[in-house]
Amino acid sequence: MFKKGVNKLAMLKRCNVKISISAWHCQIKLLDFTVLGGMDEMFSYGGYTGKVFRVNLTDNKVSEEHLSGKLVEKHLGGRGFGAYFFNKEIKPGIDPLGQENKLIFSTGPLMGTGVPCAVKVNLTTKSPHTGIYLETMASGYFGPELKFAGCDVLIVEGRSEEPVYLWIKDGEVEIKKARHLWGMFTSTTQEFLRRELGDLRVQIACIGPSGERLVKFASIIASERRAFGRGGAGAVMGSKKLKAIAVRGTKRKIHVSNPERVKELSMKIGKILKSTPITAQDYPKYGTNMSTTVINEFGFYPTKNFQSGVFSGIKAVSEGKWRNEFVVKDVSCPGCPIRCGKISLVREGPLTGFVTEGPEYETTWALGAQCGNDRLDVIIAADSLCDMYGVDTITAGNTIGFAMECFEKGLLTKEDTDGIDLRFGNHHAILKAIHCMAIKQGKLGEMLSLGVRDLSSKLGHGTERFAIHVKGLELPAYDPRGVWGMGLTYATSNRGGCHLKSWTIGDEVIAQTVPRWTVKGKAKLVIRIQNMRAVFNSVGICLFATKGLTWKLIPEVLEAVTGIKYTSDELLGVGERIYTLERIAAVKCGVNKKDDTLPRRILEEPLPEGPAKGKYLSLENFNYMLNEYYRLRGWDENGIPKKETLKRLGITNV
Amino acid sequence: MFKKGVNKLAMLKRCNVKISISAWHCQIKLLDFTVLGGMDEMFSYGGYTGKVFRVNLTDNKVSEEHLSGKLVEKHLGGRGFGAYFFNKEIKPGIDPLGQENKLIFSTGPLMGTGVPCAVKVNLTTKSPHTGIYLETMASGYFGPELKFAGCDVLIVEGRSEEPVYLWIKDGEVEIKKARHLWGMFTSTTQEFLRRELGDLRVQIACIGPSGERLVKFASIIASERRAFGRGGAGAVMGSKKLKAIAVRGTKRKIHVSNPERVKELSMKIGKILKSTPITAQDYPKYGTNMSTTVINEFGFYPTKNFQSGVFSGIKAVSEGKWRNEFVVKDVSCPGCPIRCGKISLVREGPLTGFVTEGPEYETTWALGAQCGNDRLDVIIAADSLCDMYGVDTITAGNTIGFAMECFEKGLLTKEDTDGIDLRFGNHHAILKAIHCMAIKQGKLGEMLSLGVRDLSSKLGHGTERFAIHVKGLELPAYDPRGVWGMGLTYATSNRGGCHLKSWTIGDEVIAQTVPRWTVKGKAKLVIRIQNMRAVFNSVGICLFATKGLTWKLIPEVLEAVTGIKYTSDELLGVGERIYTLERIAAVKCGVNKKDDTLPRRILEEPLPEGPAKGKYLSLENFNYMLNEYYRLRGWDENGIPKKETLKRLGITNV
Repeated sequence: MFKKGVNKLAMLKRCNVKISISAWHCQIKLLDFTVLGGMDEMFSYGGYTGKVFRVNLTDNKVSEEHLSGKLVEKHLGGRGFGAYFFNKEIKPGIDPLGQENKLIFSTGPLMGTGVPCAVKVNLTTKSPHTGIYLETMASGYFGPELKFAGCDVLIVEGRSEEPVYLWIKDGEVEIKKARHLWGMFTSTTQEFLRRELGDLRVQIACIGPSGERLVKFASIIASERRAFGRGGAGAVMGSKKLKAIAVRGTKRKIHVSNPERVKELSMKIGKILKSTPITAQDYPKYGTNMSTTVINEFGFYPTKNFQSGVFSGIKAVSEGKWRNEFVVKDVSCPGCPIRCGKISLVREGPLTGFVTEGPEYETTWALGAQCGNDRLDVIIAADSLCDMYGVDTITAGNTIGFAMECFEKGLLTKEDTDGIDLRFGNHHAILKAIHCMAIKQGKLGEMLSLGVRDLSSKLGHGTERFAIHVKGLELPAYDPRGVWGMGLTYATSNRGGCHLKSWTIGDEVIAQTVPRWTVKGKAKLVIRIQNMRAVFNSVGICLFATKGLTWKLIPEVLEAVTGIKYTSDELLGVGERIYTLERIAAVKCGVNKKDDTLPRRILEEPLPEGPAKGKYLSLENFNYMLNEYYRLRGWDENGIPKKETLKRLGITNV
Repeated sequence: MFKKGVNKLAMLKRCNVKISISAWHCQIKLLDFTVLGGMDEMFSYGGYTGKVFRVNLTDNKVSEEHLSGKLVEKHLGGRGFGAYFFNKEIKPGIDPLGQENKLIFSTGPLMGTGVPCAVKVNLTTKSPHTGIYLETMASGYFGPELKFAGCDVLIVEGRSEEPVYLWIKDGEVEIKKARHLWGMFTSTTQEFLRRELGDLRVQIACIGPSGERLVKFASIIASERRAFGRGGAGAVMGSKKLKAIAVRGTKRKIHVSNPERVKELSMKIGKILKSTPITAQDYPKYGTNMSTTVINEFGFYPTKNFQSGVFSGIKAVSEGKWRNEFVVKDVSCPGCPIRCGKISLVREGPLTGFVTEGPEYETTWALGAQCGNDRLDVIIAADSLCDMYGVDTITAGNTIGFAMECFEKGLLTKEDTDGIDLRFGNHHAILKAIHCMAIKQGKLGEMLSLGVRDLSSKLGHGTERFAIHVKGLELPAYDPRGVWGMGLTYATSNRGGCHLKSWTIGDEVIAQTVPRWTVKGKAKLVIRIQNMRAVFNSVGICLFATKGLTWKLIPEVLEAVTGIKYTSDELLGVGERIYTLERIAAVKCGVNKKDDTLPRRILEEPLPEGPAKGKYLSLENFNYMLNEYYRLRGWDENGIPKKETLKRLGITNV
């Protein structure tokens, strides 16, 4: 429908090609040229295309803008860019499903450069599920392809009247009609779109029926079976009538500052990954499910809506059984030697034929133990359904688990569930529940599509005690009563209950560098990991790869790729800046200390059994950590970053 | 695993490239050279690669053989080749699911030459469903690709121990491991295989869980959503542990005798197709479903297991409603200007997201009226399930319809159906039944996977009266009580109850060139159409295209492509030869007059309502037609072709 050529100027400049004045003017005239980031000059760093593609679906306008050096230096990419553009462009108080919301896809400088495992693309938007700031990342081929196609950042704004998809190829952006795809599962959408575009290597991010129906926790499925899972970005896409984004970059070369050094470092990182047990053996064999058995052994594997920390059916869902009986293929993201991706297939019984990539550790848990379900075939089929319809597996499992507890407590009856016996462990009910929830089908579907927080609000009767979420985002698969640092992590994650911003289990439980059952020092630990991960996520590195591409190596790799020198401390500072920018984004959405908390079950009910029996994270202990956290972060007692903190971090205009 | 280079000799010969003696000897030595067809010289006709690829899965041997000119002249290709090789190579009395059975894929000379609509690839084997000769054809890209990849005929024999797939590319054949694909739906099998082979244009024929589980009426899905549907060829593939055949030919050129003339005729045919209402308007708009309303208006649209010839829910399943509410895309086979293919998508309600190509007229009926089901969304989802699992939709719908009548008559109870209320029109029951039948799940699945004939035998109690099949193959969507020529067609079809061998409705009911309610002249009509269609099917032309590529044009086109001159009568003779060869194949499997009959309901029960009310095809009337048919065919009173007939047709060594 609408098509726009894109400037080759920045690339030419970086390559020291001389441009005549007339050509220059011609380009400027063509392009409605803008430099973003407060500077009036573009940069010449490696690792970036330097470009932002902006698509406005309301008026079908496609434009291109350029990143400034200052912006890049201060925010790196990925989450950093996301937080920057969110603060700059998304007004507080807007409706996440209104046309004022935006989808900000941002890549990192290491992606597409040959550095191993640099694949993580970030998506920032305002969440319809939590009502606040959301960043969500996907692995796979979509992110690198976006960069090969010519942009660091893709911003989609406005709202189309008719279903459309974006076709981004080698710097050209088209808005194309998608009426024929509207209603399709994510799997068939990708199949038809690849066929239509005639290229197997087209990478597609798309929504399924859940995103179209504005299910608040709808996901976006990218690169076949990877997901922008959490927080409902799929519903934002659905609200814009944007079915898919198809991307292809045939010139698979990103300019880097020091090609030889990048090659050398990449080989070094590859070697480390190939010789480190976790990345050479554990991840390749079991993927993220390598944690299943051990977390249960530690006693904080949440079971039946966090009623216990040990799951009686653990053997039946163990990584060993899964690997032996269901995994048929190892797959990887581009340029990743780890190959943690697993294709699972049900070959026997009524669910024969169901295939999924994963299920990842969190999904195995959410659709398994959290629902009292010990059947891997059901978990795989349920995961497959979640991906086909496009809903977040963690929220789906949590919501079903929560509803199951309500059902068993008599707060929900068959009257509410369209006759379904919604007891823990009812396999049929789990699959039925996902189907109904994903398309808001019947009473059961309408109810479950609320997610945990809103369903609890609707039910009342003290259900908020066991409504397991933080800021509306349901918790993942580590019960904080058994690992307190994760409690602080969940409470201070800017998007709500998230396990990815810091993972303290290594320090607290495995290496025990910080005593497990204390609160002292936890804030410092969490902050350090949060800041480091803000950097990893912004340069585009997969967290699993950081066993090889360690924190120590990041400055070296960044310099070789971009030409920008950072010390380790400077980089930590960038991480802190990014995390603080995200906090500001959340604060603008209304977040403050009242939201930095944990579900009452976590704070008040001791774990009833297992190795962590009797443990809980008392409000007193929690508050100790939180107050220390605020102090160390330079946030005030209400959790708002202080002016001097902003100044120290060089954050302006927010 | 095993790989074999293939001779370019025949091609070189045809292209008049001079070959030195040494090169010639070298090739012969390499190739274990054999010429098939009783001649000791290859031919130089256009339209053929001249090659047979033979794959033996028992000993992992791949070899190549060459067709003789005599063989080609006498059998054309497609069904002709299938019947030839069946008679030559498949011993009577073998177990269809044993390693002695073979899969004979055969293309036609017009395929891949630029002649419009030449896409139909034939598959001949012994049917596990009927126990007799089976030919089944698929449209789409698979057939032409097979030819582009270098062969006219592919014969798969033996049985592998482990799951495998074939990878045929540009004359190379590999037998590759398929353990990771075993258990997958046909849709995911294709997705993973294309990804694995790295080429979107790879064409795949594969089985789903039904073929693997040896469901006797399992289909083979080819070219995404096309099917070798009838008779259970998918189970034969499954018995050989052959999951898929992947094909790619990058040199997309088939030598023809007179390229200019082929081009000229192709354009002429294209023009006719574009200016003939049925191929320019009706097929493009409604596909095969254009018949739905009209056949019901004629009063022979079989309803609820042929209990009636008019369906009260016809409006709800009409082609107009379907086109308006469910069709999202028109698709076509390669080189076809008609575009009768329709992608249907359910966008609302609990079945949202289900996609299918089609449903074709027969499927709309089998999963609709035949089961008393008037919901198009259910028909589309049911069709989609049949394709995913890989079962024939016509047999599936018939078997469910038959079981529904048994259930309503009290001959089956909920005890037999795992609690399912198997009444006509129960939408949930239809979907559940397909799921169970397709993987032999539970009592219901085991029962339905028998198909109509065997289920009737098992149930007894006079159910054979309404067990609607001929020779074990369930009937399609024209009730012969309303169109008697179709009764003779079904009874004399060599694979059992089939509507594709002759379609007399045009002559009997629409144009009325032969009086409808008489039996005189019907045998002659049926024979003529059967012979013509044997030719169309053997040269590879889609029957829908014969409105443009008429019988009159066939000799001209064949000459331009192959260089072989046939008169119209000679070609009819070839058709007769092919049909008779198929009869011989069936006779070898035990078929004779006792099998050339119709279900008792058709012969004894008058249609109870509608425009054809009171009509039936009495045994007397039927026998009149059949005896006349035998006489005109030159078969004896038991339906066995006479010696003089074989002599007249030049059939030897059978």
